[in-house]
Amino acid sequence: MTQSQFKFDLIAQDGHARAGIFHTPHGDIPTPIFAPVGTQATVKSLTQRHLQELDAKMILANTYHLYLRPGDDLVAEMGGLHQFMGWEGPILTDSGGFQVFSLSDMRKIDEDGVTFKSYLDGSTHRFTPELSVKIQENLGADIIMAFDECAEPYDPVYSEKAMQRTHRWAERCQNAKTRDDQALFGIVQGGVFPELREASARFITSLNFPGNAIGGLSVGETKDEMHNMIELVNDILPREKPRYLMGVGTPQDLVNGVMRGIDIFDCVLPTRLARHSTAMTDHGRMNMMNAQYARDERPISETCTCYTCQNHSRAYLRHLLKAGEMLSGTLISIHNIHTLLELTRNLRQAIIDGQFAIFAEQYLSTMDP
Amino acid sequence: MTQSQFKFDLIAQDGHARAGIFHTPHGDIPTPIFAPVGTQATVKSLTQRHLQELDAKMILANTYHLYLRPGDDLVAEMGGLHQFMGWEGPILTDSGGFQVFSLSDMRKIDEDGVTFKSYLDGSTHRFTPELSVKIQENLGADIIMAFDECAEPYDPVYSEKAMQRTHRWAERCQNAKTRDDQALFGIVQGGVFPELREASARFITSLNFPGNAIGGLSVGETKDEMHNMIELVNDILPREKPRYLMGVGTPQDLVNGVMRGIDIFDCVLPTRLARHSTAMTDHGRMNMMNAQYARDERPISETCTCYTCQNHSRAYLRHLLKAGEMLSGTLISIHNIHTLLELTRNLRQAIIDGQFAIFAEQYLSTMDP
Repeated sequence: MTQSQFKFDLIAQDGHARAGIFHTPHGDIPTPIFAPVGTQATVKSLTQRHLQELDAKMILANTYHLYLRPGDDLVAEMGGLHQFMGWEGPILTDSGGFQVFSLSDMRKIDEDGVTFKSYLDGSTHRFTPELSVKIQENLGADIIMAFDECAEPYDPVYSEKAMQRTHRWAERCQNAKTRDDQALFGIVQGGVFPELREASARFITSLNFPGNAIGGLSVGETKDEMHNMIELVNDILPREKPRYLMGVGTPQDLVNGVMRGIDIFDCVLPTRLARHSTAMTDHGRMNMMNAQYARDERPISETCTCYTCQNHSRAYLRHLLKAGEMLSGTLISIHNIHTLLELTRNLRQAIIDGQFAIFAEQYLSTMDP
Repeated sequence: MTQSQFKFDLIAQDGHARAGIFHTPHGDIPTPIFAPVGTQATVKSLTQRHLQELDAKMILANTYHLYLRPGDDLVAEMGGLHQFMGWEGPILTDSGGFQVFSLSDMRKIDEDGVTFKSYLDGSTHRFTPELSVKIQENLGADIIMAFDECAEPYDPVYSEKAMQRTHRWAERCQNAKTRDDQALFGIVQGGVFPELREASARFITSLNFPGNAIGGLSVGETKDEMHNMIELVNDILPREKPRYLMGVGTPQDLVNGVMRGIDIFDCVLPTRLARHSTAMTDHGRMNMMNAQYARDERPISETCTCYTCQNHSRAYLRHLLKAGEMLSGTLISIHNIHTLLELTRNLRQAIIDGQFAIFAEQYLSTMDP
């Protein structure tokens, strides 16, 4: 198995924070990077041109959803996910593991895999590590993920059992993989338990994936617990491989993750908040439905360079929200994704300039918690 | 009352079809033109940049809706509709008359005006010709419309009564108007009755508006009746003023209207159909939800140059629709509006080239009815 098309160049380090470039068949990803989530092969309410204009470098799509609808075979027949959705840049697909565990009321786990019922029609399906890889090969993303078991973070017995199974499944995913133009990332599990996280980081490292992810965080644990787990795991994960913190998140999470050596993030937060009237800024969140914005001619953020802030007032956004107009979701999504992408661009520059600690402290201190 | 900022130049005529330029304070409108409808100060699901990219020359907004929410006073305070919605091109507002008559369950008409209940909260409101003009002056569109009474098309007694009142209200609108940077258009009514339409066209012509509209069509009458009324009215309306056929519509209606001397059209059809899965093409409509498109790699139309057809397959659009994704509405709206705008551009060129009759016959003969 060659990974010649994937190469991670670390170009600067400042404390534990890293700036790099991850080379993929569909383009270079400057890190740290935030990947907007396009669950069903669409970042909700945005055209692919919007994403280009936002200079999004990578997007994420969900294996579980695309397997159920329209089906990974159909996507493969249409030329793969890039062609199907009209996005020429890098794509990452998750393994479906998280959704199988979080969306399915009825699921049964055994050593071989998971049987679950579709959230769409109740039909029965079964994922194994091998099938997850096969689906992801059909989808054809640049980065694909090992099929893992995401346990509740506070149950030590279940966490260890799930972690051990995740390890065995990681090896099976590696063995099942056939395509050279996809990078398979391993996933570290282990809940909030240092000894489990440490063992998991060592084991996943030993499998020599071209990149490694930290899963099972941002699922209910405290921020301190999350930060401790990241620090502990990143001490073990190889520095010459990209590190991906799955399903995270907020601007603060990005700063705190980069501070602890994370390179890649993804989260539905910017688009989900947008659909619920909420704008993300470098100083906290704003509910654009708020009556105080009814006659406010200012943009969401007066220093923001996004399309929304360059063209529209808070008063107009509030009107669109009150009127139930779809454009509100589009405009606030553009702003929210811009906020996170601009933050990662600024974090990257601060690392290159050797100013990361100052930037991070300043940023976190002016953020309304 | 000067109208110096408004000038209509007829640059070519071919049969009754006309090509012209209507000059407004926010830019020139080449005619024939189709104006997409932005009911609540947003053409549903499109950014203003989408409209620019589609080369939309004018959009329409609804007085009734904007009066109720967010309020015309608020829009005025925010600098008027252009500033409020971030659209720098020409805007037309209707008078609110059509919505008062079509949306309000409870309405009471008297000589002075109409009392109605808000469709939003049941609160009671009253429109008079003077108030309609005042609201439209607050909104600040380039073209504003006289407040008219839109009758059922087949009741001769009510049609005449409504027409006479529309005439008196047209004069009151003209007297109420105070802004020089807005062109007030009169509206011809009279149902499907030739003698009423003739009388109405003569009376409205006598008021010497800078442009004239035909209202009360496309509300249930046959196509033949509509075409007859247009021909009859346009024989009377002055040729040196733009003629606007309100609330129309389909590609065939545009061709048939232009053939009979219409210059301006508006309709919610392209965006409404898009939100109901339907693409408009030069050969008829396509329901993009149809199973036959599931694995169809072609764009909606293989000859179409719109963003959607240049970037996305029928299979992808069908997937978005099946998945309930907002992007489907945006992408199909882009295509549908492009179809109508491209048609008006082609009609205009055919008129300039003296090829209108051939173009129209060819177009109508290949359209699936």
